Amino acid sequence: MTEFPSIDAAQLVKQAIEAQQRAYAPYSHYPVGAAVLTEDGRVHTGCNVENAVYPLTMCAERVAILKAISEGARHIRAVAVVTPNGGTPCGSCRQVMQEFGAPEMPVFIGRSDGNYRQRTLAELLPDGFSAADLTTNATTNKNEWNE
Amino acid sequence: MTEFPSIDAAQLVKQAIEAQQRAYAPYSHYPVGAAVLTEDGRVHTGCNVENAVYPLTMCAERVAILKAISEGARHIRAVAVVTPNGGTPCGSCRQVMQEFGAPEMPVFIGRSDGNYRQRTLAELLPDGFSAADLTTNATTNKNEWNE
Amino acid sequence: MTEFPSIDAAQLVKQAIEAQQRAYAPYSHYPVGAAVLTEDGRVHTGCNVENAVYPLTMCAERVAILKAISEGARHIRAVAVVTPNGGTPCGSCRQVMQEFGAPEMPVFIGRSDGNYRQRTLAELLPDGFSAADLTTNATTNKNEWNE
Amino acid sequence: MTEFPSIDAAQLVKQAIEAQQRAYAPYSHYPVGAAVLTEDGRVHTGCNVENAVYPLTMCAERVAILKAISEGARHIRAVAVVTPNGGTPCGSCRQVMQEFGAPEMPVFIGRSDGNYRQRTLAELLPDGFSAADLTTNATTNKNEWNE
Repeated sequence: MTEFPSIDAAQLVKQAIEAQQRAYAPYSHYPVGAAVLTEDGRVHTGCNVENAVYPLTMCAERVAILKAISEGARHIRAVAVVTPNGGTPCGSCRQVMQEFGAPEMPVFIGRSDGNYRQRTLAELLPDGFSAADLTTNATTNKNEWNE
Repeated sequence: MTEFPSIDAAQLVKQAIEAQQRAYAPYSHYPVGAAVLTEDGRVHTGCNVENAVYPLTMCAERVAILKAISEGARHIRAVAVVTPNGGTPCGSCRQVMQEFGAPEMPVFIGRSDGNYRQRTLAELLPDGFSAADLTTNATTNKNEWNE
Repeated sequence: MTEFPSIDAAQLVKQAIEAQQRAYAPYSHYPVGAAVLTEDGRVHTGCNVENAVYPLTMCAERVAILKAISEGARHIRAVAVVTPNGGTPCGSCRQVMQEFGAPEMPVFIGRSDGNYRQRTLAELLPDGFSAADLTTNATTNKNEWNE
Repeated sequence: MTEFPSIDAAQLVKQAIEAQQRAYAPYSHYPVGAAVLTEDGRVHTGCNVENAVYPLTMCAERVAILKAISEGARHIRAVAVVTPNGGTPCGSCRQVMQEFGAPEMPVFIGRSDGNYRQRTLAELLPDGFSAADLTTNATTNKNEWNE
């Protein structure tokens, strides 16, 4: 991790565990916490915030990212997420990470007991859709077409 | 508004205008800001945070509410939202307000120039779906059935 | 309802009840069905389709509307929704109705036993946000500003 | 692809292209079509259905899957998606595929000109969150924890 010398993974996971305590999860009973490190060295935390209308539920990772962006950040450097059993980020959260994070951004996937493992964003969302794809003429790096 | 003696609407709208400056709206070019007053007197702000995958866009009102809840609040007392032209909160945001706000909660709908008008949550989401409805046997106050 | 002479509310509610049988609701255990009448006289039905990632759950009303639009319709004339206990459409569904329905569009809110009551879209989503609001200079009909 | 002998990829892509013609994309101007093959051999198609409130936009892949499930299907065998330039499914769509598809399910990612490439769901959403993860005590196959 020489490219991210200042990321303290264990500390980020710890902050995610603290945020997990504030989860509002009366419907799933599955509390999640997250912590996001932004380029300026600040950490923003989040928890899942559920809703009686399930589609309006929001995941912890996205709450943390939304906080960071709404405070002025535009790039995120690392994400930690903590669930009771080490569940991974959902596809929606991976996509929101993609809007603001680099492919090599580390994502620390932890449990409430503090253990965690590491993935990169590119590993979690390979060949992800991105803003560049909205430009119709972009052919990007997709060069393995049939026919 | 004697039941909410301490709500300073103009101040809340002003904070929403400040938050609007941080909007991440590269796709709609429609910046929105919001401010939420919680029961403990704190104010949380938010802006819209868009995404190349449009469904993953988040509205300013919800960003502010998600912040408040993730910081430990469970009830919100007032919401201010500011758009360039006085656009109202979307249905999704009204529903998230319902999860944490009372029917009589004031919602201040403002413009970037500081002008605003006031509605209650009940006016914006009449007969709203709520957690109580998830309990199958609840018959609630719906007593005007055909047949 | 002279402006909608051909809407058979009881029949639409019946079709929503049939669709409710196909609900995929393993998380909420709250099955919902919906039926949408489009301008060409066709009826499209839907049920809620839930997801282990709660935010990716989709409501019955929207499933029915999405079907209608994806089959080529662009305007909806009536919506029926059926829940176990007469729960109303959520704010998100009201907003999607607004994209394709007129303010006076009837919404029939039913129960599994076939009873229902009627609202208009404008009653369910007063002063709703719409495409016109995305145009920054639109001042619309909002003329009751403070100051 | 011996395990899916009856999947006609080119035909599925063709149906997605036809569905793309019905896209309702007035905001992004990025039309998308999709086709889903269910276990009973039926094909359901979809297109993106956008909304002035961007978060309420729905992707083509999900429209097709929602149709399939609401018609009674519970398992999907293949998905084809077509965009102007070969853009990949977003993270949210990958997650909805996961609810109803097997890891080895093929996803054909095509362009409007009919060319396509193939991925599996597991390749698009590695280590995906699933219903099993909602059970708190599940430890699943995650055995590479720090500490």
